[in-house]
Amino acid sequence: MRIQVVNPNTTETMTATMGACARAVAAVGTTVEAVTSPMGPASIESHYDEALAVPGLLRVVAAGERDGVDGYVVGCFGDPGVDAARELARGPVIGIAEAAMRTAVLLGRTFSVVTTLSRTAGRAWELAARFGLAAQCRQVRACEIPVLDLERPGSNAEHRITEECRRAVAEDDADVVVLGCAGMADLCARISAAVGVPVVDGVAAATKMVESLVALGLTTSTRLEFARPPTKPYTGLLSSFSLETGATI
Amino acid sequence: MRIQVVNPNTTETMTATMGACARAVAAVGTTVEAVTSPMGPASIESHYDEALAVPGLLRVVAAGERDGVDGYVVGCFGDPGVDAARELARGPVIGIAEAAMRTAVLLGRTFSVVTTLSRTAGRAWELAARFGLAAQCRQVRACEIPVLDLERPGSNAEHRITEECRRAVAEDDADVVVLGCAGMADLCARISAAVGVPVVDGVAAATKMVESLVALGLTTSTRLEFARPPTKPYTGLLSSFSLETGATI
Amino acid sequence: MRIQVVNPNTTETMTATMGACARAVAAVGTTVEAVTSPMGPASIESHYDEALAVPGLLRVVAAGERDGVDGYVVGCFGDPGVDAARELARGPVIGIAEAAMRTAVLLGRTFSVVTTLSRTAGRAWELAARFGLAAQCRQVRACEIPVLDLERPGSNAEHRITEECRRAVAEDDADVVVLGCAGMADLCARISAAVGVPVVDGVAAATKMVESLVALGLTTSTRLEFARPPTKPYTGLLSSFSLETGATI
Amino acid sequence: MRIQVVNPNTTETMTATMGACARAVAAVGTTVEAVTSPMGPASIESHYDEALAVPGLLRVVAAGERDGVDGYVVGCFGDPGVDAARELARGPVIGIAEAAMRTAVLLGRTFSVVTTLSRTAGRAWELAARFGLAAQCRQVRACEIPVLDLERPGSNAEHRITEECRRAVAEDDADVVVLGCAGMADLCARISAAVGVPVVDGVAAATKMVESLVALGLTTSTRLEFARPPTKPYTGLLSSFSLETGATI
Amino acid sequence: MRIQVVNPNTTETMTATMGACARAVAAVGTTVEAVTSPMGPASIESHYDEALAVPGLLRVVAAGERDGVDGYVVGCFGDPGVDAARELARGPVIGIAEAAMRTAVLLGRTFSVVTTLSRTAGRAWELAARFGLAAQCRQVRACEIPVLDLERPGSNAEHRITEECRRAVAEDDADVVVLGCAGMADLCARISAAVGVPVVDGVAAATKMVESLVALGLTTSTRLEFARPPTKPYTGLLSSFSLETGATI
Amino acid sequence: MRIQVVNPNTTETMTATMGACARAVAAVGTTVEAVTSPMGPASIESHYDEALAVPGLLRVVAAGERDGVDGYVVGCFGDPGVDAARELARGPVIGIAEAAMRTAVLLGRTFSVVTTLSRTAGRAWELAARFGLAAQCRQVRACEIPVLDLERPGSNAEHRITEECRRAVAEDDADVVVLGCAGMADLCARISAAVGVPVVDGVAAATKMVESLVALGLTTSTRLEFARPPTKPYTGLLSSFSLETGATI
Repeated sequence: MRIQVVNPNTTETMTATMGACARAVAAVGTTVEAVTSPMGPASIESHYDEALAVPGLLRVVAAGERDGVDGYVVGCFGDPGVDAARELARGPVIGIAEAAMRTAVLLGRTFSVVTTLSRTAGRAWELAARFGLAAQCRQVRACEIPVLDLERPGSNAEHRITEECRRAVAEDDADVVVLGCAGMADLCARISAAVGVPVVDGVAAATKMVESLVALGLTTSTRLEFARPPTKPYTGLLSSFSLETGATI
Repeated sequence: MRIQVVNPNTTETMTATMGACARAVAAVGTTVEAVTSPMGPASIESHYDEALAVPGLLRVVAAGERDGVDGYVVGCFGDPGVDAARELARGPVIGIAEAAMRTAVLLGRTFSVVTTLSRTAGRAWELAARFGLAAQCRQVRACEIPVLDLERPGSNAEHRITEECRRAVAEDDADVVVLGCAGMADLCARISAAVGVPVVDGVAAATKMVESLVALGLTTSTRLEFARPPTKPYTGLLSSFSLETGATI
Repeated sequence: MRIQVVNPNTTETMTATMGACARAVAAVGTTVEAVTSPMGPASIESHYDEALAVPGLLRVVAAGERDGVDGYVVGCFGDPGVDAARELARGPVIGIAEAAMRTAVLLGRTFSVVTTLSRTAGRAWELAARFGLAAQCRQVRACEIPVLDLERPGSNAEHRITEECRRAVAEDDADVVVLGCAGMADLCARISAAVGVPVVDGVAAATKMVESLVALGLTTSTRLEFARPPTKPYTGLLSSFSLETGATI
Repeated sequence: MRIQVVNPNTTETMTATMGACARAVAAVGTTVEAVTSPMGPASIESHYDEALAVPGLLRVVAAGERDGVDGYVVGCFGDPGVDAARELARGPVIGIAEAAMRTAVLLGRTFSVVTTLSRTAGRAWELAARFGLAAQCRQVRACEIPVLDLERPGSNAEHRITEECRRAVAEDDADVVVLGCAGMADLCARISAAVGVPVVDGVAAATKMVESLVALGLTTSTRLEFARPPTKPYTGLLSSFSLETGATI
Repeated sequence: MRIQVVNPNTTETMTATMGACARAVAAVGTTVEAVTSPMGPASIESHYDEALAVPGLLRVVAAGERDGVDGYVVGCFGDPGVDAARELARGPVIGIAEAAMRTAVLLGRTFSVVTTLSRTAGRAWELAARFGLAAQCRQVRACEIPVLDLERPGSNAEHRITEECRRAVAEDDADVVVLGCAGMADLCARISAAVGVPVVDGVAAATKMVESLVALGLTTSTRLEFARPPTKPYTGLLSSFSLETGATI
Repeated sequence: MRIQVVNPNTTETMTATMGACARAVAAVGTTVEAVTSPMGPASIESHYDEALAVPGLLRVVAAGERDGVDGYVVGCFGDPGVDAARELARGPVIGIAEAAMRTAVLLGRTFSVVTTLSRTAGRAWELAARFGLAAQCRQVRACEIPVLDLERPGSNAEHRITEECRRAVAEDDADVVVLGCAGMADLCARISAAVGVPVVDGVAAATKMVESLVALGLTTSTRLEFARPPTKPYTGLLSSFSLETGATI
């Protein structure tokens, strides 16, 4: 089984982190490929970044389909482009926010999200509501660390994230903590040990979800909404995204 | 006051229809400009199309901001890119689904949506839920007319849409009907006369909403989520979308 | 177009404030008439007051209908009698709580209400839930100023309301503030400047909503619920409210 | 213990029916008084009627308070004026819609309401939502019998209501049926026998609820919202409703 | 009328407390029998205890049915086994959490629950959601007193519970307090006097609810879900629970 | 990794079916043990059966804990005893209803459940609501086949279930079908091929979920609610379930 973990931003070091976290949990027989988006923003910290990360994600998925990939993880906590990618892919496509939140509720009654910048909290709440989990999400907390600083020596990121997770338990009465950024994936086990509750990283969780669905022989329903899109002309800068016969997007 | 009605697909005739519908309801002193997206799909009928309609929309809004536009209507019933556009625009940005559904509930207890293809019904339900209106949305009905056929002679579109609206009243017990596609904007009054309940077109409704917000001196809160996005490098096909100093997206 | 802003309490100075706020935002060609209820409580601060404000409101609307009024604003934040008035009026009827809350969610993800007495907070929550906006309403805050003190020199009302709005932003994480009393309508712009987020006054917002609906040719659905009421005898003190043929309520 | 069943319309025969149904279930030691509103509509079939039924109800409750009544049933399925009456009464006040729906969910997972005119269905749905029971209310059905025809010989009311209750079970999958009008109170047992599921009449249910609360020593919380209203001048036709010192409303 | 208050734990002193509280509110003509479970845990403080309290409860109800009991109160705030008991009993079965929460919302807009151990709070929230009352439940508070310590001299239980109730009013803005354990039933009146809002004990509330339903001639719908269970073999330790013909469970 | 699939009824053939279905999807390195409850009902078709299936389930889990089992699947679509089992187990415990419904929503916007007897539909709806998925569950359909008839030659079970699944797609507009009984686990692939949408079996889905959680190093939060239960005496028939020191339940 081949799973691609797609980093929808263009920062290769984050892709590497995600790939390592996914591989660490993959089953024997699962190959994990971590792929960086070929276009768009260096990190995703706004609705604007998120929207402009989608074309690159779709290009990666289209290529993966030509190449026989079995399923995809979308490695950004805003779950950008997941529905569009589901229309392209034969196999399952799972965003890390959906994976992390749906995993958290298997582990306790309530969870809090600890994310990077507070400007992204609104999107996390919106996703929790869309997943039917708003009542179980106690809080979305930000540690105000820009995404690319997560890896910057001297940012003190791990300490600050750990402290925010501790507050999630103490102040929000959360049974579980969800890490709200793919760039935090490698911190999961250490923070869990420090704060004493399960801490969920969406990259690893989504990898297991995709792997499970493939093993179960299940994939996105192609009945109506997620069937292959109708083809049509695309123009301008995005003309190469047309799905018309013969096109390679 | 200058309002732009942005058609996020690339079909000029639909832009013209939207512009005419918006101008027909604008107040004295309001200038309506109808603008076609410079890139992307010829019509929006899938999550894939919708995602790839957003870059063109954002380019239009960025240009509008340099040009002093006071507010924007996003003329596609999936409300693509509205949150991203709100981060760019000084003035209000309203999608036609949000405008139409929020207008419908001022007119009756329940509404049904009549849209083009049934594959788009899922997105309409998702938006209704996001707007807090799922309990009032009785049904999303499709007449299975592709978007670009709405204007094709011989498609019998008006008749088929009218019949579907009639069923919305008779079978769904809907007080109000919402037309679920910008391409239906010009049919509104005739259908309402035929079916005997208010029929809401989102293009006209959104135009009045934007105009009202500007008149009220109100615009998107820039407190956190919708503040100007952090700037950063963009690469590849989308490198021109970077908001870094000096860039013109 | 003629719009009536109806003050359902009997205090003329509040009517004058509402009229001025409505006129300040009305479009060219819109005439705003501010009308005081001919009966009932001097201010509305309880369910009891609210219930007894409705007969006067209905009398004003019935007179407006004989006189060709195009739409009505109900100028009390409890939205008293709106559904009953919709049954009488040919044109739209909008309460200021509905207008303010539905406007707030166009401007940000969350809002808080700042109102007069905390005993009225329950009704504001009930309305938010009815409008489908409970999840976006972060808090209803009271500054404990009786309605008629809003205009009393020495009540320090503006300062106290401004401070409560500031707490709404700082403590509730609200993107937008809604002023929860028609008597606060004139403070809107100054408070917004002071606290740095959009502040919505329902009187102005409702005026633009009614004006927009009239311009769109839309009015309350008369299909079932909001059709003209069945006529019947009325007796006692309220006998003059019978809608039977020939009656002038 | 003295309980008043208040008929908020002015039709004495309906009051008599309600009184009989309430007395049939009252405990030893409970005195039931059935009281007709001294003003307003002869029946309640619209929001307009409902609004104008409230002053009469409040006058009855105010008189009851002077007279030592222990609790009140509001005998109209729209629950008009219940919150206002709670501010006046020392003891509990229960509307028959609230009583009937809250009783129904003790008896099964789902219920349907069978009411008079379909124009009143919207209000029943609104109340179900307010009570937190919308998910359990499967349908609101109307038999299109005007309220005052319920008692008219030749209206065939019992047969038509029974048939509608049968459809509620067969088509809505309802475990329980709620009768949606005080005028149906006397049909309850016979319809239940005919259709084979519990059928709830709100008048009897509310009577037991009020009686139970009094027996439990419980009454409306007077903490904030339902405390005695602030007093103030009332003018015009309603001047006699002022609660100022010395007034007898 | 004969009502059984079933204590699903095996501690006789708690059964006696419940019986006394139920008898104190029962109507003339109602006989209250307090019955202790013949098997299982000495107190119920976990999901494990709750699950294992159900067989004893069912045995009591089965015996009660042979004996002509008219209705049952399930005296544990987790409402264990209520649905199963409803399948066995001809008359109504009410859990004290359902009774207490549904009574609380008749008395004010919001309530908080004060319970024993914080590990049980999750179950209380789950029940509030199931009853449609999550939006009205402001908080579930624990005073960290094990159930059997409620009656232990020196536990200072009454003082600690009263203080927690006081915080429910002051910090949660609760109109009403619900006591979250059958073992607190006798404290109700004193705490209400101390904190100034209605305080609801589920044992008394459920007793009146059962009594009311019996008086109304209403019982659980036997249409589908709550019909008598299909009979079948039971084996092992629980073989005596088979409902097959001739069996006495 | 060792996973136990626990059949909470006592029918060995159903245990064998579940074990085979679980093993068919388990990863290399995962050992699946299928275990039959040592006590209780032969099948689970009522709340009564469900309640009395829990003690046997807990006995199996307690034994598994002594024996080093890594995680458990609870093989009944009512998810009996899951919360109690979570308090006992070090590793994850997943019910097949939760697994199936949470898997279904990864594959489409809506799902319907096809179950055995319509008397169990209420419990399925209750679980959907508890999981936050009520809005996505379009219908719960029964084919009126008793559980033990699923395996009976001549019951025509597969045909009848397949037809019901077809109706779920055609009439409910469901993207995905969930099989609502562990006894249907082996039919999954054939029905999916027949009806053209993904069909989810909870036994397989839960097995992958437990396996994934173990691989991720995640287990139930032991912070408060799901911590090891307080120990105490148990008496009567269930005295062997006491968790007191030295006890082997």
